[in-house]
Amino acid sequence: MSNADAFDLIVLGAGPTGENLADRARAGGLSVAIVERELVGGECSYWACMPSKALLRPPAALQQARRLPGARAAAGGELDTDAVLRRRDAFAAHWQDDGQVAWLDSAGITLVRGHGRLDGERRVAVDLPEGGRRTLTARHAVALCTGTRAALPDLPGIEQAGVWTNREATGAAEAPPRLAIVGGGAVAVELATAWQALGSRVTLLVRGQALLPKLEPFAGELVAEALREAGVDLRFGVSVEGLTRSGELVLDLGEHGELRAEEVLFATGRRPATGELGLETVGLEPGGWIEVDDTGLAVGVPGGWLYAAGDVNRRALLTHQGKYQGRVFGTVIADRAAGRELDLAPWGRSVATADRVAVPQVVFTDPEVASVGLTLAEATASGRRVRAVDYRIGDVAGAALFADGYRGQARALIDLDRETVLGVTFVGAGVAELLHSATVAVAGEVPLDRLWHAVPAYPTVSEVWLRLLETYRG
Amino acid sequence: MSNADAFDLIVLGAGPTGENLADRARAGGLSVAIVERELVGGECSYWACMPSKALLRPPAALQQARRLPGARAAAGGELDTDAVLRRRDAFAAHWQDDGQVAWLDSAGITLVRGHGRLDGERRVAVDLPEGGRRTLTARHAVALCTGTRAALPDLPGIEQAGVWTNREATGAAEAPPRLAIVGGGAVAVELATAWQALGSRVTLLVRGQALLPKLEPFAGELVAEALREAGVDLRFGVSVEGLTRSGELVLDLGEHGELRAEEVLFATGRRPATGELGLETVGLEPGGWIEVDDTGLAVGVPGGWLYAAGDVNRRALLTHQGKYQGRVFGTVIADRAAGRELDLAPWGRSVATADRVAVPQVVFTDPEVASVGLTLAEATASGRRVRAVDYRIGDVAGAALFADGYRGQARALIDLDRETVLGVTFVGAGVAELLHSATVAVAGEVPLDRLWHAVPAYPTVSEVWLRLLETYRG
Repeated sequence: MSNADAFDLIVLGAGPTGENLADRARAGGLSVAIVERELVGGECSYWACMPSKALLRPPAALQQARRLPGARAAAGGELDTDAVLRRRDAFAAHWQDDGQVAWLDSAGITLVRGHGRLDGERRVAVDLPEGGRRTLTARHAVALCTGTRAALPDLPGIEQAGVWTNREATGAAEAPPRLAIVGGGAVAVELATAWQALGSRVTLLVRGQALLPKLEPFAGELVAEALREAGVDLRFGVSVEGLTRSGELVLDLGEHGELRAEEVLFATGRRPATGELGLETVGLEPGGWIEVDDTGLAVGVPGGWLYAAGDVNRRALLTHQGKYQGRVFGTVIADRAAGRELDLAPWGRSVATADRVAVPQVVFTDPEVASVGLTLAEATASGRRVRAVDYRIGDVAGAALFADGYRGQARALIDLDRETVLGVTFVGAGVAELLHSATVAVAGEVPLDRLWHAVPAYPTVSEVWLRLLETYRG
Repeated sequence: MSNADAFDLIVLGAGPTGENLADRARAGGLSVAIVERELVGGECSYWACMPSKALLRPPAALQQARRLPGARAAAGGELDTDAVLRRRDAFAAHWQDDGQVAWLDSAGITLVRGHGRLDGERRVAVDLPEGGRRTLTARHAVALCTGTRAALPDLPGIEQAGVWTNREATGAAEAPPRLAIVGGGAVAVELATAWQALGSRVTLLVRGQALLPKLEPFAGELVAEALREAGVDLRFGVSVEGLTRSGELVLDLGEHGELRAEEVLFATGRRPATGELGLETVGLEPGGWIEVDDTGLAVGVPGGWLYAAGDVNRRALLTHQGKYQGRVFGTVIADRAAGRELDLAPWGRSVATADRVAVPQVVFTDPEVASVGLTLAEATASGRRVRAVDYRIGDVAGAALFADGYRGQARALIDLDRETVLGVTFVGAGVAELLHSATVAVAGEVPLDRLWHAVPAYPTVSEVWLRLLETYRG
């Protein structure tokens, strides 16, 4: 084996997580190879965050203007769907990864294109796109950053029917006249919002009785109300039992009859992209999630050389959290390789503490949903003494100015023993940027008596913070 | 003197500051009278924050939509100025204070309408609107919350010319065809933005060479660029030397010739509304600012009974900061009256520490300017070891999605000895709600190594925080 095939660190998967992890390890002095079988930049750049937000933003901005007398009539024209789709294409870099490859080069990271899989301890075998195989060896570590794939249910006819996952739904070249969406999570509600605005008649089929079931209940309720008002046919308690396509799609909804549509998106969860990753060569179960400790080390693999970061470890399936893990774990790998001391205390440099208690999430619906930390249900289940403090955001002067008929809701979850904020959820127009105030408060463990001195500017929506504090004080 | 004229606390001025101060003192067990000669609710509610933001928001929302392909053409209609002005009227409560009066009632605060002035220690004489005078006595304290008035320069012809202050400029019933604005601060640039959008041809006359001179220099530069692009005739180094009106106004600009307009707004600063407040009866200079300590007690007045809160004490001329002082000082007054212990440590319950180091401000121009804490110039002058970290907000993915051609700039000021954030300035579309993240970081003194764990959601503008941290790390 030539020396050219040995690196300090080998990263599998060049999405945002892998890129950040590789970058920090490189900055820490390691030689790094990154293996990618699709596009450098990953799911988020081409088939998730970027294109979906590009689809959502123009109609949302138009909607904001329409909520204001004086601007309403001026913004009464028809949304130009083609222009939105072209802008989306640009944000997906036209599904070309040249820019990302150039960044890897500039960072001094070696790109190996192909399908990489583990081949025993510290070895990675790469099936090259031009054929043949290259074997890489890692002096210190291998990091799995392969993310997830859409999880499709096992339904009669699904393989033949040509269904959409997030990839087709974010990349579609036109709005299908009728779009069925199966699911009630973030992907489902965002893409229902987008395609309804872009001209499709969307039917949203939810197996349970709520949207966004992992968040505070009022989040899903407000989003459901808004989707209905936008014209989405929202049905709870409905499952797809089978489907066929002959020209149009026919979805068998069991006792609820059938539904016809041009396309159907299954937004029914994610499965780890670990099926063909050679996990069996290191004693792990192929296709499973990879459990890690707070430094990113895979549990159950001896030798301390295998790491997993991002969606694949199931700690938090969000791009920004994967990037965070990439930064932390990449630094850990370099520090361990160099024999530098780690900082393993909670919130230390070497542990991804935020994964446990301060994960932010924005759902870019209209209203937006922005949350960080624990929900009331989670905090209660954890046995903490907590109090939920609620406030209607529309009663804040800044929100009333922002839009007529502003509807929104805020909840802060107070740890009664420490008098800190354990979690915050905002629902409303324009709360996406307000979230970071909550993230700083939660991750910073800023006590309530100090938050009283963090004065929100008047008149902004942020003044909801003051109302929450006042409500807590009673 | 009847018992009905004795109160634990007498508050002069029922703006937001006086209202909050009265409310907290009342909640602390005191009987409170509040004296107001104009509208309960104060300058902010009727002639400043509320109406100005009502003028600014609809054109800003329309402009946001126009920066997005797909929405641009749909938002191409003409702004309906009349509708904007009617909405403004509603936000100014049609200059009726019934709602505010009802709130005072519900809070158990006694409203005394009329012009109140000090009449020696713990005494207030009120000239009643129906004629006659009522004398009130305070068992514990008197709080001056009378705010400021527009400061007009002493120019030949100014009294006869019928010029605008913030009151006329926020309350105007139509857009003057040509509007001259004198000044370069927040009021000047906000109202230039508003009236240019609402149909006036605005000329902005700035004596110095920069807009928003108290903020980071790039803030004024970006706002100047945007005002020029919006069509404002922006002139630096120009002073008005006199003015006359005969039908139209003629402004004498000295060596720069003259300028003709239908109206002229002087946004040339504020003076304390203390001219007819009886300050001379307690040994203070009439018409001056009232210096206070961190608990709100007026300096130089023996007996510990006179407080001043809000603009009138010159600590921070901003509504939200006056409200903050009102909360802190109102509680202090009640605590002192009851003999409860104060918490005088920095950031304690009884001191308005944020006034010194964590004052937030949003200028609602387009781009918005949002800042908190110290500027580089202020921090350097204070002798601290600091480093300014700069980042172009348009390079953040969330900003690029937010608007095509997003222009914005962020600066974080790092205390090199403590590794905390001393100040932050954001300039860009939609940064108003992002500011509170910085306010929590500055007021909370959250260390940088903890801010690394406050993960911004992807893709939001808030990710500029990550870029600032990365830039600092180098």
